Amino acid sequence: MIIPKKKHLSDEEYSILTDIAVEFKCKIGKITGETITLYPIIGDETSELMINRIEGLPFVDHVQRIQAPYKLMAIDNKLAPRSITAGSDGPNPAIFGGGSFTIIAGHCTIDPENQSLFIETAHAAKEAGADMLRGGVWKPRTTPHAFQGSDKSLSVLIDAKKKTGLPVATEVMDEEQLKMALEAGVDTIQIGARNALNYGLLKSIAAHTTGRKTTVLLKRSIHMGTVDEFISAAEYLLTAGNYNVLLCPRGVMPATQGFRNSPDESITLLLKKMTWAPVVVDPSHAVGNSRYVPNASLAAAAYGADGLLIETHIDPKRGIGDDPKQAVTPDVLAGIIRDARTIKSLSVKYLDRIIFLRERN
Amino acid sequence: MIIPKKKHLSDEEYSILTDIAVEFKCKIGKITGETITLYPIIGDETSELMINRIEGLPFVDHVQRIQAPYKLMAIDNKLAPRSITAGSDGPNPAIFGGGSFTIIAGHCTIDPENQSLFIETAHAAKEAGADMLRGGVWKPRTTPHAFQGSDKSLSVLIDAKKKTGLPVATEVMDEEQLKMALEAGVDTIQIGARNALNYGLLKSIAAHTTGRKTTVLLKRSIHMGTVDEFISAAEYLLTAGNYNVLLCPRGVMPATQGFRNSPDESITLLLKKMTWAPVVVDPSHAVGNSRYVPNASLAAAAYGADGLLIETHIDPKRGIGDDPKQAVTPDVLAGIIRDARTIKSLSVKYLDRIIFLRERN
Amino acid sequence: MIIPKKKHLSDEEYSILTDIAVEFKCKIGKITGETITLYPIIGDETSELMINRIEGLPFVDHVQRIQAPYKLMAIDNKLAPRSITAGSDGPNPAIFGGGSFTIIAGHCTIDPENQSLFIETAHAAKEAGADMLRGGVWKPRTTPHAFQGSDKSLSVLIDAKKKTGLPVATEVMDEEQLKMALEAGVDTIQIGARNALNYGLLKSIAAHTTGRKTTVLLKRSIHMGTVDEFISAAEYLLTAGNYNVLLCPRGVMPATQGFRNSPDESITLLLKKMTWAPVVVDPSHAVGNSRYVPNASLAAAAYGADGLLIETHIDPKRGIGDDPKQAVTPDVLAGIIRDARTIKSLSVKYLDRIIFLRERN
Amino acid sequence: MIIPKKKHLSDEEYSILTDIAVEFKCKIGKITGETITLYPIIGDETSELMINRIEGLPFVDHVQRIQAPYKLMAIDNKLAPRSITAGSDGPNPAIFGGGSFTIIAGHCTIDPENQSLFIETAHAAKEAGADMLRGGVWKPRTTPHAFQGSDKSLSVLIDAKKKTGLPVATEVMDEEQLKMALEAGVDTIQIGARNALNYGLLKSIAAHTTGRKTTVLLKRSIHMGTVDEFISAAEYLLTAGNYNVLLCPRGVMPATQGFRNSPDESITLLLKKMTWAPVVVDPSHAVGNSRYVPNASLAAAAYGADGLLIETHIDPKRGIGDDPKQAVTPDVLAGIIRDARTIKSLSVKYLDRIIFLRERN
Repeated sequence: MIIPKKKHLSDEEYSILTDIAVEFKCKIGKITGETITLYPIIGDETSELMINRIEGLPFVDHVQRIQAPYKLMAIDNKLAPRSITAGSDGPNPAIFGGGSFTIIAGHCTIDPENQSLFIETAHAAKEAGADMLRGGVWKPRTTPHAFQGSDKSLSVLIDAKKKTGLPVATEVMDEEQLKMALEAGVDTIQIGARNALNYGLLKSIAAHTTGRKTTVLLKRSIHMGTVDEFISAAEYLLTAGNYNVLLCPRGVMPATQGFRNSPDESITLLLKKMTWAPVVVDPSHAVGNSRYVPNASLAAAAYGADGLLIETHIDPKRGIGDDPKQAVTPDVLAGIIRDARTIKSLSVKYLDRIIFLRERN
Repeated sequence: MIIPKKKHLSDEEYSILTDIAVEFKCKIGKITGETITLYPIIGDETSELMINRIEGLPFVDHVQRIQAPYKLMAIDNKLAPRSITAGSDGPNPAIFGGGSFTIIAGHCTIDPENQSLFIETAHAAKEAGADMLRGGVWKPRTTPHAFQGSDKSLSVLIDAKKKTGLPVATEVMDEEQLKMALEAGVDTIQIGARNALNYGLLKSIAAHTTGRKTTVLLKRSIHMGTVDEFISAAEYLLTAGNYNVLLCPRGVMPATQGFRNSPDESITLLLKKMTWAPVVVDPSHAVGNSRYVPNASLAAAAYGADGLLIETHIDPKRGIGDDPKQAVTPDVLAGIIRDARTIKSLSVKYLDRIIFLRERN
Repeated sequence: MIIPKKKHLSDEEYSILTDIAVEFKCKIGKITGETITLYPIIGDETSELMINRIEGLPFVDHVQRIQAPYKLMAIDNKLAPRSITAGSDGPNPAIFGGGSFTIIAGHCTIDPENQSLFIETAHAAKEAGADMLRGGVWKPRTTPHAFQGSDKSLSVLIDAKKKTGLPVATEVMDEEQLKMALEAGVDTIQIGARNALNYGLLKSIAAHTTGRKTTVLLKRSIHMGTVDEFISAAEYLLTAGNYNVLLCPRGVMPATQGFRNSPDESITLLLKKMTWAPVVVDPSHAVGNSRYVPNASLAAAAYGADGLLIETHIDPKRGIGDDPKQAVTPDVLAGIIRDARTIKSLSVKYLDRIIFLRERN
Repeated sequence: MIIPKKKHLSDEEYSILTDIAVEFKCKIGKITGETITLYPIIGDETSELMINRIEGLPFVDHVQRIQAPYKLMAIDNKLAPRSITAGSDGPNPAIFGGGSFTIIAGHCTIDPENQSLFIETAHAAKEAGADMLRGGVWKPRTTPHAFQGSDKSLSVLIDAKKKTGLPVATEVMDEEQLKMALEAGVDTIQIGARNALNYGLLKSIAAHTTGRKTTVLLKRSIHMGTVDEFISAAEYLLTAGNYNVLLCPRGVMPATQGFRNSPDESITLLLKKMTWAPVVVDPSHAVGNSRYVPNASLAAAAYGADGLLIETHIDPKRGIGDDPKQAVTPDVLAGIIRDARTIKSLSVKYLDRIIFLRERN
């Protein structure tokens, strides 16, 4: 919808609009009101380029976008899967969506100097009810002087996979790490909040995971970007054909005083309304403090999340990275899982109504 | 804690600091590190004025505040009440805090032209389980060309109080409205998000409600201010002696795309950790859409809220103000109350741990 | 413009829309695209109430607002003044707008215990080139335990007016202060950032200043609200007929790390494009540090401001409130005025182009 | 500085702190105030890991960081260059910092189908006073369905370099593009706002540009992150020895209504106070509209920027990407350069005072 700077455009101005539209296989309509005339763009594809051309005209105030900028991720995509399975070739596949409530747990960072700690956490997390293990191998750190992770930790992660039979997830930050992770047998590739708009990495992951059974978990960007931007970033992952995508809200900046970020589990509602992809909330980064993680987990379930990604450590004070501060112990994890599942069973009916009301016709 | 601009201050600079401190009955300490010396301010009262004086010195970078800027609202205030009762002289007092989960429900705006609608809503809300009624009499509107409320609605509110026996709440925006509301028998005075930092109004309410049994519900300011700022605003209400204060998070700006505001029920955790006051969350303004209100209500319970303020209307499409968009119907309200209470019974144990860990000694 | 939840509405749904519109003397249009049909609301007045009613319908996604929610403040209001004069009955009227660049200077807070300081500052500020004096009499403070100002300071302000012949400005927070200020002869009433959306105060000021020559300076709200919201708040001031309104950006929350707020002098461009009112930027609160004030002042001139409100003190370290930290000395003020005027003479041509391009026809 | 949860720690708790500190070669001090005892961490290096360990302790509230998390970028780094030269082996090297005011101009996106347009712009930009050319070869786009750039455009960029003798800049998003750009002879590598925290890319650029004369321009992250975070990201670029770094504020999210982003040229002051690196402001992305670019450019000069990055196009309406909307014409560019240089000559004295006041001793 083109909003002009004046009440009505002249014939000459209207014909300039029409010429641009035709170039992009669109048409320009006209809605004559008593106080202002509006000019809708009509066409199957409204290219960003065309919109930029039109917004550059001196008599145009702005163009209001009315349709969402994504298609594959849209809830009415007929090709979308009903649920997503990670580790489908292992003994304990983890199913996301379709009514399940699925838990990913483990260290923020695997300590390459104390490998047994992660194995102990893995067993305890499985015991507590976790469906998948996470362990940070490589770490994006705000300063180059901080510990950046280690390749050695990758084999620790795979060792935990073998010992527990659970699928495993880790974050990659570039193509080299991606290839190492896939080759080693990582089931779920995480994209962190700082790389959430790194479209080169997204495309690379799309290319390398398509044809495999690899799942991709995309964290929301670190700032309070729009929901459209988040879904559009996920759209990059689908372009090569891999639909195994999980969306992960994890808190946004600017932070709420007292938390690490501002919790954003509420966008689960919006994501569920607009896309078909399962939503896995990360409460650990949102609040940044193990004492606050249980309530934040329950709130995610109240908002209808399909699962949680919770930093868990057998002995947080011996952890590295964010674990001493953020990680919960396996017994706290077990309680969270039990309570969150009860809450999800209460919250799901309200969510169904939102999706139903959307009436996909 | 004074952070200097240089590694170490000269004797002369240190003595300038000391002179200012003495003037305010404080002392300046010295912590000599290997790379930098820091200068703590020691004293029972660190006045803002002293801090401004010190921060104005050319060799001072800034002063870091370490203690909270409020006292009466602090969780370790020995005089604080265990719970707060609204409408204590009526047949159905509403108790907030101390383990209860309390519901305030009713119209955003009472329609003075259709008075029976509010009475119908009042009966239905009571039936659904509401403990208090809310009805907007006067309205702060973004534009002066919108409906600003009507004095006539006050008598409708009081009529509903009489007919249902429930205590009633309404927002006031100035002293004149405050006096009218108190005289008419309003039990709870609401302070809206736009007036949350209107310290003149806060002081006026403190003065007029002290000595009465009136409760005051303070909404969080419309922007993402600090938690300290919110609690400090409530501190104004207590200065004259009235401790009947409820804190109400209601979403903050900038808005999340798709919601009216950005939901902020998570700060319940922080408020509970720092103050003794009951927290009543308003999910209706946070999400701004009746379809999203149920999940947002459950999330507030998951974060440990002591109650909810929910816009409810017997027939939302006949409502005025925000009601057609935001208000839930009484049957939805009944379901929310039932589910939220179940969730609160699950979430409270985690909250108790946070407060306990704070160790008040 | 009504955006439906489905591609096309049924006849029955369309007729529900039409019924609501007719009730508000509007019509509903129809723009049939290939993929979606849109439904414009046609009418002179699109009431908020009607929009809320329509957004409450189950088949409506949302309503996109296309026209600005204000009229009197709009740049095409034929009744708007070309410039605004404060202190028109005194010896040195201060003219805002119409090509001038006008300076308001003085203490954040007048110290009632050291009255001669303000008089000294007043003389020095006039000498430095200031056109109006400001001095805080009553202060909104984040905590009730801080100094709240004193009635005694009002007579100091008026004394400075008499001694220098310059018009004077001060902030009021309630009707009582307003009456005292007007009676004493204050020329410009300031509305602070915390009261910028206190519509009761705005209406009260509108009522009491109409028929007088009093000017009103409205600060932007403390949070990063929309420009529409800011202008709409000013619209309240005009409803009773007083057009002597100045708009004052003063930085917004959340703060940029290192500044008191996030500087927002850039919105001058947007305010100039949309309204006729002069824009006076307050750099002192935006950056919150006297060392940063000069550059922030020059940036305001670069963005085309009509003037500046600068906290100035003859001896900042003896000031109270924010003065030790924020106030510049009169000699720095003189330099700022000289440089800012040179910059305004360079920036104004670009601004004229923006306003001209808007083509008021 | 460790802030405890209680007024004073027990001997046992203090010894737990001391044990952790010793492990990291630090000590824990003690500052006993009347109401609270604080515990400073003393040592040359306060590792993030140690802080996380300490913050994970049940009796610790939080750790307040007092020193900046970067060293190489710090203004007191004795090894820092006085100015930075791009294209030092070409006929027209562009010098940043050390008193110069340097202009980078050119297309947002080079149109591979209309190559002569960029060459025309290049000649006209040089004529208008530009010191370096920018041209987008590869583009990060919010949606995968938008034009992503083309390798063909790289040769167009290099052709413009040859024809004008000016150094050239382009954005790279991954290592492959980086290698192609360096091999082709690109003088300045840009890192875009979406990749500003892509630490893998930053490290890769550090590795590949060290030993060359390549300059790196780092844009600020797309969200309103802290200034420390921005400088720390630049620190990554320096770790391998290449000090040719330019810092580029370009506006941040959330956007101001009416602009593409929220302009942030003001942080120039903070960057200049804390680091030695030249600051080049990008007004085009900040405001996102060619009509607003001139005033935003002048404001950057008022805040003391060392140069500007301005999207310029010989005929914006024939441009692609953001050019139709954002790009100024060469004649407007010439005016901006002239006016901005005048303003910089006025603003620099205030900046010098800020840096001087910091007293590097």
